[in-house]
Amino acid sequence: MPGRFITLEGIEGAGKSTQQAVVCDCLQQAGIAVELTREPGGAALSERIRSLLLDPANQGMAVDTELLLMFAARAEHLQRTIRPALAAGRWVLCDRFTDATYAYQGGGRGVARERIALLETFVQGQLRPDLTLLFDLPPHVGLRRARGRSAPDRFEAEAEAFFERARAEYLRIAEREPRRVRRIDADRPSAAISAELRDLLTAYVADCRGHG
Amino acid sequence: MPGRFITLEGIEGAGKSTQQAVVCDCLQQAGIAVELTREPGGAALSERIRSLLLDPANQGMAVDTELLLMFAARAEHLQRTIRPALAAGRWVLCDRFTDATYAYQGGGRGVARERIALLETFVQGQLRPDLTLLFDLPPHVGLRRARGRSAPDRFEAEAEAFFERARAEYLRIAEREPRRVRRIDADRPSAAISAELRDLLTAYVADCRGHG
Repeated sequence: MPGRFITLEGIEGAGKSTQQAVVCDCLQQAGIAVELTREPGGAALSERIRSLLLDPANQGMAVDTELLLMFAARAEHLQRTIRPALAAGRWVLCDRFTDATYAYQGGGRGVARERIALLETFVQGQLRPDLTLLFDLPPHVGLRRARGRSAPDRFEAEAEAFFERARAEYLRIAEREPRRVRRIDADRPSAAISAELRDLLTAYVADCRGHG
Repeated sequence: MPGRFITLEGIEGAGKSTQQAVVCDCLQQAGIAVELTREPGGAALSERIRSLLLDPANQGMAVDTELLLMFAARAEHLQRTIRPALAAGRWVLCDRFTDATYAYQGGGRGVARERIALLETFVQGQLRPDLTLLFDLPPHVGLRRARGRSAPDRFEAEAEAFFERARAEYLRIAEREPRRVRRIDADRPSAAISAELRDLLTAYVADCRGHG
């Protein structure tokens, strides 16, 4: 079975990190080798680029700079981590990918969809996630959770309206690509979300194995 | 008189830094306000990106990553430094710009010209240098000079063949755009180069002022 590329998406405080572990466990129980990774980051240089992107000292960064740094980190991540893992038959479980660019830089900052699509094809060629889990919840709920954790990074420091626009963009993507993007209601107790995920992943794996 | 955008190009050890001061002096004597800058760099975040690009620890960086980091730094530099200076009527004197991307990432690393051109338009729109001074010399001469100075950065550590390809690409650009790009023979004593530059700049300024 070839490796599959699964991404987890959602705004701050949606519980992606907690649920990434659940998805990983579920896949491993099915005998699948999993590569856990994240964006921006997932490779040594990509993590250094992540630091630039999140550093509150870089407030006021040009919109194009932010966008190009995201794709620079992604190009390295693809070459170093994602493509080798998929080629080796591992499943890649990535906390955020290009949908986040559409949501944050597109919806949040107002970059035209076509400009993001151009870089997406430039860097990824034909590679797209096979399955995307969108953890959806109202920004005021997510931000309350996220801001309880630590000093806000450059994105977390944005106003709630920024995350409203990012969420709206995420939901538009889910509407346009219902087969790839599964919306998970993340405004529920963690256990309920995990249970839904286990069912969803079990069915997905069976489908991939040709039993579905 | 609107600000003009002048770039200095050439491989390692071509003497650009020394001659940038001469060009600056020549323009200032003509009563022109000059903004001295460089790439990659020229703005706070762009200098942080420069550090990533030059750090020998990042040997083996994906070719697309290098290319996108160059343009990320350029986007910030344009918004923070170059466009505001030109808008204020200052002349911008920049040590390396997009021709260097064609030379190093294109000629040196083999990135297709069209891929660079796509990002050039993406980031710069219609902005191109008004005048480019290409300091041309054989790589073995330049490298001998550059390597005498300090520990080599990630580019300086490349083999001579890399710089042969970069130089060839620079010369192709000069051939294609003879009005914009002036080739300066940099394999001469510094004083001879400076004298030629002073003549060239004096004529250029006169031309810009409508006396030419």
